[in-house]
Amino acid sequence: MIEKQHLKALTKIVGSENIYDDKAHMIAYSYDATRTRFEPDAVIFPRHEQDVSDILKYCNEHLIVITPRGAGSGFTGGALPANGGIIMAMEKHMNKILEIDTENMVAVVQPGVINMDLQKRAEAQGLFYPPDPASEEYSTLGGNVSENAGGMRAAKYGITKDFVMALRAVRVNGDIIRAGKKTIKDVAGYNTAGILIASEGTLAVLTELTLKLIPKPKYKKTYMGIFPSVDNAMNAVFKSLSAGANPVAMEFLDKLVIEALIEKLGVDLPTEAGAVLVGDVDGNVPEEVEFQLKTLQASFEENGASEFRIAKNDDEAKELWYARKNASQSITIFGNKKLNEDISVPRSMLPKALERIYEIGDKYKFKVPCFGHAGDGNIHVNVMIDISQLDEGHKCIKEIFEMVVEMGGTLSGEHGIGTSKAPFMGIAFSDEEMQMFRDIKKAFDPNNILNPGKMGL
Amino acid sequence: MIEKQHLKALTKIVGSENIYDDKAHMIAYSYDATRTRFEPDAVIFPRHEQDVSDILKYCNEHLIVITPRGAGSGFTGGALPANGGIIMAMEKHMNKILEIDTENMVAVVQPGVINMDLQKRAEAQGLFYPPDPASEEYSTLGGNVSENAGGMRAAKYGITKDFVMALRAVRVNGDIIRAGKKTIKDVAGYNTAGILIASEGTLAVLTELTLKLIPKPKYKKTYMGIFPSVDNAMNAVFKSLSAGANPVAMEFLDKLVIEALIEKLGVDLPTEAGAVLVGDVDGNVPEEVEFQLKTLQASFEENGASEFRIAKNDDEAKELWYARKNASQSITIFGNKKLNEDISVPRSMLPKALERIYEIGDKYKFKVPCFGHAGDGNIHVNVMIDISQLDEGHKCIKEIFEMVVEMGGTLSGEHGIGTSKAPFMGIAFSDEEMQMFRDIKKAFDPNNILNPGKMGL
Repeated sequence: MIEKQHLKALTKIVGSENIYDDKAHMIAYSYDATRTRFEPDAVIFPRHEQDVSDILKYCNEHLIVITPRGAGSGFTGGALPANGGIIMAMEKHMNKILEIDTENMVAVVQPGVINMDLQKRAEAQGLFYPPDPASEEYSTLGGNVSENAGGMRAAKYGITKDFVMALRAVRVNGDIIRAGKKTIKDVAGYNTAGILIASEGTLAVLTELTLKLIPKPKYKKTYMGIFPSVDNAMNAVFKSLSAGANPVAMEFLDKLVIEALIEKLGVDLPTEAGAVLVGDVDGNVPEEVEFQLKTLQASFEENGASEFRIAKNDDEAKELWYARKNASQSITIFGNKKLNEDISVPRSMLPKALERIYEIGDKYKFKVPCFGHAGDGNIHVNVMIDISQLDEGHKCIKEIFEMVVEMGGTLSGEHGIGTSKAPFMGIAFSDEEMQMFRDIKKAFDPNNILNPGKMGL
Repeated sequence: MIEKQHLKALTKIVGSENIYDDKAHMIAYSYDATRTRFEPDAVIFPRHEQDVSDILKYCNEHLIVITPRGAGSGFTGGALPANGGIIMAMEKHMNKILEIDTENMVAVVQPGVINMDLQKRAEAQGLFYPPDPASEEYSTLGGNVSENAGGMRAAKYGITKDFVMALRAVRVNGDIIRAGKKTIKDVAGYNTAGILIASEGTLAVLTELTLKLIPKPKYKKTYMGIFPSVDNAMNAVFKSLSAGANPVAMEFLDKLVIEALIEKLGVDLPTEAGAVLVGDVDGNVPEEVEFQLKTLQASFEENGASEFRIAKNDDEAKELWYARKNASQSITIFGNKKLNEDISVPRSMLPKALERIYEIGDKYKFKVPCFGHAGDGNIHVNVMIDISQLDEGHKCIKEIFEMVVEMGGTLSGEHGIGTSKAPFMGIAFSDEEMQMFRDIKKAFDPNNILNPGKMGL
């Protein structure tokens, strides 16, 4: 419950139409894509940067907890009010594409802009915004930057971090700061943008983003390799890349996913297939696309691929992609609850990592279908359980995390830590590293009012 | 002067062969590539990470100022002991390439490794480390990361920051921390690597770097465009890039530099030329290289280029590059002292920025030959003065900085701030932004013992 006087003061800042504390809204804003629920005490919609500044200053002075929120589509609870307080929601007003600067190839956007809206606007002008999280249709760019979202095209183009040139943000004391420039090179002052990216809204509130765009490559083709085993496919991943292939995406489906796709959706894949790699290659000239396809085909065949398909047209491309796009929904045949994690390992460790994941799954007697972004080493591991097996499921996940970290991998390739992975931070980070995170947090948010309870801090 | 007891304690850590306080060494370590000189009280050579930890812990406890140093080739005094104290020099022991991991395409190096040594080792294995500061033959990778060094190839491949995947560092209290992974995607915890890059050794001491390598493109060609005016050339820069050209480098020489090259070195360029653009294009297939050359040629000619040269072989390529590589030494014909700054503006602002630079130079009656990395908006501005005109020269520079910042540019594209640009930080950053930098500094170095007096903090 928020005190009346605070509600009144905040209403004075944004107007009564931009703040709610009724039960219906509190429930609506208590969710994200995790299974957890935290109800806020109020939801506030800043109209502009000055509102953000006034709100934060007030909350900081009165020690009111506040959590910034984009679309609330995160997988780890980053935008959930874990300690109650106020949700600052960006989707109502701060949702404008301010500029597509074609001369410098940059976009300037507010944090509430939906990823796909920027992609479309850029493409309409012959430009390209590559980061494509699976949530691209509804997640916001502010959320993407706060979680450093990845996606399929990261294999060639990199992740959100690689596209943030500059930003504006508001500190908890209300100070408005700018970081970075519309220039390729800028080394004046600390790289504040660098530390705000992926900070899950715990250090400052983003109010404007300057994002790099690139020229849209003219040619694109879709390929698929079919392998007898996961081991073959995982070897093909890093061997094709070190042979010089640079595919836009190299997505992976394992044997269980293939089984599910055939059984549930009748997808055209051989029943004996042990793994599939599917993706796009692109280029400015057809010969570059051919070079990519040949390099992939040669490496795939050297690593035991039984088949290498190339889509002849858009329809065939869609068909090849259909399997990957429906992987997530098909695997529900293995259990009514899915514990979905997004581990990432150095690519050469993929064969060993997958082997170990299945061994750990077997030990707990869970099916663990895996798919995802093999081209960048980021695998979505799905521990399929019955809802009654939650404790055992979490033990299984913990063991997988321990194995991944031991292999030089990370707890999260693209989903973030938030609340749901917070208990596992001790697996990945030393006491000294956790202390450093707390020192950084304190430098930005001494009263711990900004999105507290995240990242295990 | 360092107190005897401290010298004794530090000697106990590294051994007497790894610490000096004699005059000759103090003079040798008082320089970098700036004109300023600061003598340290001692120079210490850590043998390994544990030494770095022990030294920092001791210095922090006894409030002894310490400045990490690579090759001391910086242009802004980043590695100079501006407040005295100890130099921690990495070149003697911490200079090893620990691993070239061809499967994951990453290099693991100590901070004292020379940039070019890594480039050569990578190329011997068919891989490529793109960041190529002009100091590549002698500057260290630790210094490159600390200053976020750029170079010519940034136009296509980006800057040092874009190649740092992970690092190890030591905090002032002796805590050893790791940041990042050998994985493309990693979003667990704060992006500590992000804030340590470009922090000029003021937050922690780097002890190990994991750097991204890429497959070496198979084909490369060198081009040169000759333009009647700087305005033509600067328009050609951003118009060719937004037309889809993606050259490895697009370097620029202005009329004064061309004059100097012809007069001093007899370079084969038309005397009526107003500007030159020169660079490389590369690709996996010859057709991609052709596509790049055609896109450049068309844009250059649309913007008034009188000539477009393509090198037929390595010798011709060297000849085209000769002009750019000798720009810096040729312009000494205009004055016995050069105030060399490295401003950067959004590429579309290049024509206007150059126009204003010459106007400001005219006002002060200084010749201001300009050259540099036009492809990424980063221009080396050289105010040529007589040594007696230092005050006027600095006024001229200040006016140029003010204009650049007003155009959305930055004080430094690649050299950093250090001591020499510190007086200008107020032009680029607000009081609130400077306070944020101080807050970050304090979180990492509460006693201000690590490379104090830099960045205007």
